[in-house]
Amino acid sequence: MNVILLSGGSGKRLWPLSNNVRSKQFIKIFKNSNGEYESMLQRMYKGIKDADPAAKITIATSKSQISSIINQLGDNVQISKEPCRRDTFPAIALAAAFLHDVGNVKETEPVVICPVDPYVDSSYFKALSKLSDLAEENKANLTLLGMEPTYPSEKYGYIIPQNKNDVSKVECFKEKPDLNTAKEYISRGALWNGGIFAFKLGYLLQKCHELIDFSDYSDLFDKYETLEKISFDYAVVEKEPNIQVLRFNGSWKDLGTWNTLTEAMDENVQGNAILDTTCKNVHVVNELDAPVICMGLENVVISASVQGILVADKNQSSYMKPLVDSLKESVRFAEKSWGEYKVIDSTGESLTVKVTLRAGHKMNYHAHQNRSEIWNIVSGEGKVILDGAEQNVSAGDIVKIPVLCKHTIIAKSDLQILEVQLGKEISASDKIKYELN
Amino acid sequence: MNVILLSGGSGKRLWPLSNNVRSKQFIKIFKNSNGEYESMLQRMYKGIKDADPAAKITIATSKSQISSIINQLGDNVQISKEPCRRDTFPAIALAAAFLHDVGNVKETEPVVICPVDPYVDSSYFKALSKLSDLAEENKANLTLLGMEPTYPSEKYGYIIPQNKNDVSKVECFKEKPDLNTAKEYISRGALWNGGIFAFKLGYLLQKCHELIDFSDYSDLFDKYETLEKISFDYAVVEKEPNIQVLRFNGSWKDLGTWNTLTEAMDENVQGNAILDTTCKNVHVVNELDAPVICMGLENVVISASVQGILVADKNQSSYMKPLVDSLKESVRFAEKSWGEYKVIDSTGESLTVKVTLRAGHKMNYHAHQNRSEIWNIVSGEGKVILDGAEQNVSAGDIVKIPVLCKHTIIAKSDLQILEVQLGKEISASDKIKYELN
Repeated sequence: MNVILLSGGSGKRLWPLSNNVRSKQFIKIFKNSNGEYESMLQRMYKGIKDADPAAKITIATSKSQISSIINQLGDNVQISKEPCRRDTFPAIALAAAFLHDVGNVKETEPVVICPVDPYVDSSYFKALSKLSDLAEENKANLTLLGMEPTYPSEKYGYIIPQNKNDVSKVECFKEKPDLNTAKEYISRGALWNGGIFAFKLGYLLQKCHELIDFSDYSDLFDKYETLEKISFDYAVVEKEPNIQVLRFNGSWKDLGTWNTLTEAMDENVQGNAILDTTCKNVHVVNELDAPVICMGLENVVISASVQGILVADKNQSSYMKPLVDSLKESVRFAEKSWGEYKVIDSTGESLTVKVTLRAGHKMNYHAHQNRSEIWNIVSGEGKVILDGAEQNVSAGDIVKIPVLCKHTIIAKSDLQILEVQLGKEISASDKIKYELN
Repeated sequence: MNVILLSGGSGKRLWPLSNNVRSKQFIKIFKNSNGEYESMLQRMYKGIKDADPAAKITIATSKSQISSIINQLGDNVQISKEPCRRDTFPAIALAAAFLHDVGNVKETEPVVICPVDPYVDSSYFKALSKLSDLAEENKANLTLLGMEPTYPSEKYGYIIPQNKNDVSKVECFKEKPDLNTAKEYISRGALWNGGIFAFKLGYLLQKCHELIDFSDYSDLFDKYETLEKISFDYAVVEKEPNIQVLRFNGSWKDLGTWNTLTEAMDENVQGNAILDTTCKNVHVVNELDAPVICMGLENVVISASVQGILVADKNQSSYMKPLVDSLKESVRFAEKSWGEYKVIDSTGESLTVKVTLRAGHKMNYHAHQNRSEIWNIVSGEGKVILDGAEQNVSAGDIVKIPVLCKHTIIAKSDLQILEVQLGKEISASDKIKYELN
C-alpha cells in the first residue's frame, strides 16, 4: 500500500502545547502500550505500519514541519517537501509526482491519501487497506472513505451515497449543513467526508497534467510557488463523476480543539499536577517542571508549557484562536531534527535557551551580528568549532562566542547546553549561515 | 508611638506566590498611589509611618524572615529576632525586652502590638494611635482594639464588652462560636478579636518576669529556645481582669486565603494574562514571563510562579494547605536582603538559578562540596573573589567555580547572574561558609 499522509495545520487551537513551530499533530499526549506518550503523527504512522508492514508512507508537508517530523519519526522517513503553502490540490499533486519520479511508484499502483491528525483505532488502518484494494480494482476513479455519523454535526461536509451498501457510488457532496438538514442527510445514509481517498497514481497524474503545466516532479517543485491555492475537493473531487465511497463505522475523531482532545486522553493528568476530590471532568497537560494544583473546578482544561498557560472551560476553549492571535508572541520551544530547544528565561538584553542536541547531530555553522553567546555544557560530550578551530567539550565546559564568530557544535553523545544570548537586539532572524570546510 | 509588628506565618495558604521562605505578608499584590505593587508588610509599615512619622516600629520575627524584611523595607528597619518559633507570648516578651534594653524605651511608655498582615485603611492607623494614648492613660492594664463584626463569623474569637461605648471594660472573651451563638454575641455588642492591643512597657515586662525566669534581653534571647510555646492570649490576656476595648468600625480584613486576598485586589489581573469576555469574577496573579489565557471561567483564582500553578474555585481554595503539604517541594524562589533568586531550570544533575544582587551587596564567602558552579554575568558590574584572588567582572563574563573553591561576588551595580550548578547531589544545605580576610 502507498499512503500519502498530509501534515499541515497551524498551532493556534491547542496553544500553549502548539505554537507556530509545533502543530497539533506533534503534541505527545497519547499513551502507547509501553506507557510512553506519543503524538498523533507517531500514532498514525505506527498504526499504518502495524496494519501493513509493507506500506510505503510518504509525508506531504511544508518546509517548516520537516525538522519536527524527523525528530519524531527518525531520519529515514520519506517526505515530499512543499516549498510553501498552496492548499491540498497542489500538495497532493506534488506528492503524486514525487511518488512517481522519486519513489518509482507505477501509474497502475493505488495510492491512499489521508490527513495525519484524526484520532482512530486499528479498524481505521484496516479500512485504509480496503480503500487501497478498491482503488486497485478500478471500478471508480476515486474511492472515498465515508465515516458513519455519530450525531448530526454541522461542521463536517457530507457524502451522499446512492445506496447504503458497504461500497456505493456517490450521488453528490454536501457542504456543512444546518442541524435539520444534517438529520435529513443522515436518514438518507449520508457519511462524513474526512478527506480520505484512494486512486490509481496514473489517474491522478493525468488530472494534474490537465490542470497544471509541468513536465515532472522537479519541474513542479520549482514552480510550486506559482500554483493557485485550491483544495483537492474543489479541483478534483467535485468535478469527478465516477466516485465510490466505502462506509466506515469504526472510531474516527477530529481532535482539533482542547475539548475534543481531552476526550481522547487516557488519564486526566499528564505531567506534574494534583486535582482535589471536588474536581469534575478536569484535564491537565503540564509540560513545566513545577506542579499544577486544581481545586473545585468543573469541565475545565488546563495546559502549561514555556509558551504560556491556558485555563479554559472546555466548550469555550473552541474559541481561543483570536486570543492566541492577539498575543503576538515569539516561539518559546521547538522540536527539531537535531533535538530541541526551550526558552527558559528572557530579560530586556538576554535570552537563555536550553538546547538538547542528539548524539550524532550538529547545529548549522553560523554567526550572529547583534549578539554574543555563552554555551554552558550541562551534560554530554561534543566537538565545538569556532572560526574554524576545533575543541572538544564536556559537562562543565564553557564556550564564549563573540559577535560574528562562526560557530557550531557536534554532539558525540546526547548534549544538554544552556545558551545565554546577550545583546540589545536579540532575534531569531539574526543568523548568518556558513558552509563548514 | 511604639509599635511591635508581629511577622509570622507560613506560606501554605497562598501558594504558589508564597512558599517556605516567602510568607503571605511579602507578596506584592496591592497597587500603591504610584501604581507600584507593594506587599502587606510594606503597606502596614508605610501606613503607620504616614499616620505618625515619629512612630518607632520594631518587627518581631523569626530568623528566616529577616532577609525578606530587609529586602522590602531597607537596611534600617528595627528587628527583634526570634532565634526559633515559640508562639506569640515568648515573641512579645522578647520584643518587649528588646525595646527596653536595646531600644531604650521607658517602662512608662505605651507599646502597641499588632500583626503585620491585616488589610486595612487609614482609619486603622488612627485607631492604633488612639490605642497607644489609651494605654498611656493607664485606666486598664491592657487596651484591645475590637473590630465591629460585619457578619456573624464562626472563625474569629469575640470580645464581649461591658457596654457599647467607644471604650468599654471587657467582660469576657469567647472562642470561635457557631453561627447562632455569634449572632447572639453581636446583639450584645461583641467585637472581633484581631490580636491588636496596647500596654505600658513596664506592665508587660513585669508579667514576663512573673512567667519567665530571665534577667535581661540578652539572657532571654539566649534561653529563648527553652521557653514554652504559649500564646499571648492564653498566657496574659485571659488571666488579666483589668482590660478595656476600643471599638473600631473601619476597614479590617484578614487576607489569609486566595478568596479573601482577591477581594482586595484593585484589578482582576496582575502580570501577563488575558481573560475572555465570558470570564466572571476571575482573578489572575502571574509572576511568570509567559502569558495566561483564561476562557469561560467563573469564581476562579489562578496564580503562577516558578514554584507552581494554582487553578482553584475561590471558595475551595481555602482548603489548599494539605495539597501543598503533599508536594514536598523545594523552595524555587526567594527575596533576600541582598537581592533575589529564582530557579529557572532543573535536570537530574543540574540546577540553573537566576540571581539578582543589588548594588553594594555581596554573597556570603562560601564553597560547595558536591557541586561546581558557573556564573554567567548577564548584566551589571562586580568583583569576584575565588580562593582569595580578586577579579572584576561585567556583562558577558564567565566565572568557573570548581568544587570546594571559596567564592563570593560583590555587586558594584545591580548584577544579574545565571548560575549553573552541576553535580550529582545538588542541595541548598551543601554550603560551607568562610570569613573573608
